[in-house]
Amino acid sequence: MAQTGASAARSSATHRLDCDVVHYRWDNSIPPRLEIESGDTVVFECRDAGDGWFSQSSTAEDVLRRVVKGHPLTGPVLVRGARPGDVLQVEILELVPGELGYTLFSPGRGLLPEDFPAPYLKLWDLRDGRSAEFKPGIRVPLEPFLGVMGVALDEPGEHLTAPPRKNGGNMDVKQLTAGSTLYLPIWVDGALFSTGDGHAAQGDGEVCITAIETRMQATLRFTLRRDVRLERPELRTGGPLAARTNLGPHYATLGIEPDLMAATKGAVRAMIGYLTREHGLAREEAYILCSVAVDLKISEVVDAPNWVVSAFLPLSIFGE
Amino acid sequence: MAQTGASAARSSATHRLDCDVVHYRWDNSIPPRLEIESGDTVVFECRDAGDGWFSQSSTAEDVLRRVVKGHPLTGPVLVRGARPGDVLQVEILELVPGELGYTLFSPGRGLLPEDFPAPYLKLWDLRDGRSAEFKPGIRVPLEPFLGVMGVALDEPGEHLTAPPRKNGGNMDVKQLTAGSTLYLPIWVDGALFSTGDGHAAQGDGEVCITAIETRMQATLRFTLRRDVRLERPELRTGGPLAARTNLGPHYATLGIEPDLMAATKGAVRAMIGYLTREHGLAREEAYILCSVAVDLKISEVVDAPNWVVSAFLPLSIFGE
Repeated sequence: MAQTGASAARSSATHRLDCDVVHYRWDNSIPPRLEIESGDTVVFECRDAGDGWFSQSSTAEDVLRRVVKGHPLTGPVLVRGARPGDVLQVEILELVPGELGYTLFSPGRGLLPEDFPAPYLKLWDLRDGRSAEFKPGIRVPLEPFLGVMGVALDEPGEHLTAPPRKNGGNMDVKQLTAGSTLYLPIWVDGALFSTGDGHAAQGDGEVCITAIETRMQATLRFTLRRDVRLERPELRTGGPLAARTNLGPHYATLGIEPDLMAATKGAVRAMIGYLTREHGLAREEAYILCSVAVDLKISEVVDAPNWVVSAFLPLSIFGE
Repeated sequence: MAQTGASAARSSATHRLDCDVVHYRWDNSIPPRLEIESGDTVVFECRDAGDGWFSQSSTAEDVLRRVVKGHPLTGPVLVRGARPGDVLQVEILELVPGELGYTLFSPGRGLLPEDFPAPYLKLWDLRDGRSAEFKPGIRVPLEPFLGVMGVALDEPGEHLTAPPRKNGGNMDVKQLTAGSTLYLPIWVDGALFSTGDGHAAQGDGEVCITAIETRMQATLRFTLRRDVRLERPELRTGGPLAARTNLGPHYATLGIEPDLMAATKGAVRAMIGYLTREHGLAREEAYILCSVAVDLKISEVVDAPNWVVSAFLPLSIFGE
């Protein structure tokens, strides 16, 4: 949908919200930390998804030691006048990731837990700002976004932050970079927006269950919309997709199966095969790289009984 | 994988193969129409998937009248020396679509047969070569590729052309445009390559079951590879993805469900909702446009129990 000029027609305020206090569940009874008007901007400080657990000296053993409480979210922000059935337009104005990033996988989680039973941790130096070294000769472009942006649900009680729902939440849509606009359906009075789970880079799919996880400072502008009703979140990007990565040839592997999940696993396993075979990566390294740099596409979902899911790797990460 | 220079090291021939004779099934007992050496190039004439049934005067009623025999395929081409376990490298050198295109859906087929019970036919004028008018103010960029490229299976008998399989076939991978290279695992002596199902444009997903279907002249160079073994086809693109469409902002809708197929349907239904709501299209028009111009991505497949499939529409089709 088009963006409205509503915010330009009145004076609007800019607020700041630190992350000294966070919440680890969606719960519409959590009192708002901030009340704003439609058109206002908020600068959010967001902890990383690991709640600051990892440092430059962390190892794979720290993956097992940590206590996972849920995503630490900054908020809620109450938007005055917001009512169920309205839409919250969230313009993503600026995103500033932290200096340290991490990607991990852990037993029993992610797309291929049967293939990767042991925990693994990869640390990233994000200070370059444009790309991060995976290992010598391989750099992953940074295209920061927030894994979690959502509003409160209309069901009482606590709800885990891991699954995305009709309120948005942990959508992990990598195209929500600065310049894009998210449209969230509102389910409770005041909307009660919260955010967190900064990602410096991620592939479509986030297959090992983590992106390049990092702290994030996020500047977001909020506008109430009553000209449309939505059942699920929608979004508009500010420009071409993957502007920092779609610069040259891609290599792709295919999963061809009568089930989309099986096809997805097939495509990713084939990409891990390619990365180990042609680029000398360890299987664990390949899985990590798939999660942060490989995009999953549904190539066809109509040629019954077999669907094609394809995994696309930008060869520019090798300097090609 | 890297391309080899094997074809440059010896003199190679260019052959032509018309489509006066076609085959409508994968069947490794079909005698080859052409025998070539590794390194040779073949210029294929390919009928459209509808076997020439549709003309500029066709209507939706013609969709029901036609007899679907399978994709008319040009081939087989025997590559001398090819053995099971080898890989057939297919460089896509040039693709020239026809002047007439069509997109259709028909009862009981496609992603959303329950939503679209009646047949529908859209004809396209492809003579511009770079884009085709959908209706005034909406133009779809042309990025031609072959829906079907495959080799014979190692199972005897006739096999329908509709499903893609380990031999490639009806993969409908839209990134296989000119400049890209396909790697097909070989299952029988001689490989027995055939192709057809020209598409002038398609979205990832091909949701209504057809792309912009058209005749195609395809120039392909074949090289045998024995340095790698593959279980499924792989490919390498010649440059950035969607070079003619990824030019500006995109609009996206999300499906958020505990099943990838349900999420896919949700994302497409929401995109149809967007196109009817914001761009005044009829629902049938929106479904057609999704099939030829909207790309399905798996945004995340790890945030249990809900996965996110997203449908991305390039707003450049509206001249935005």
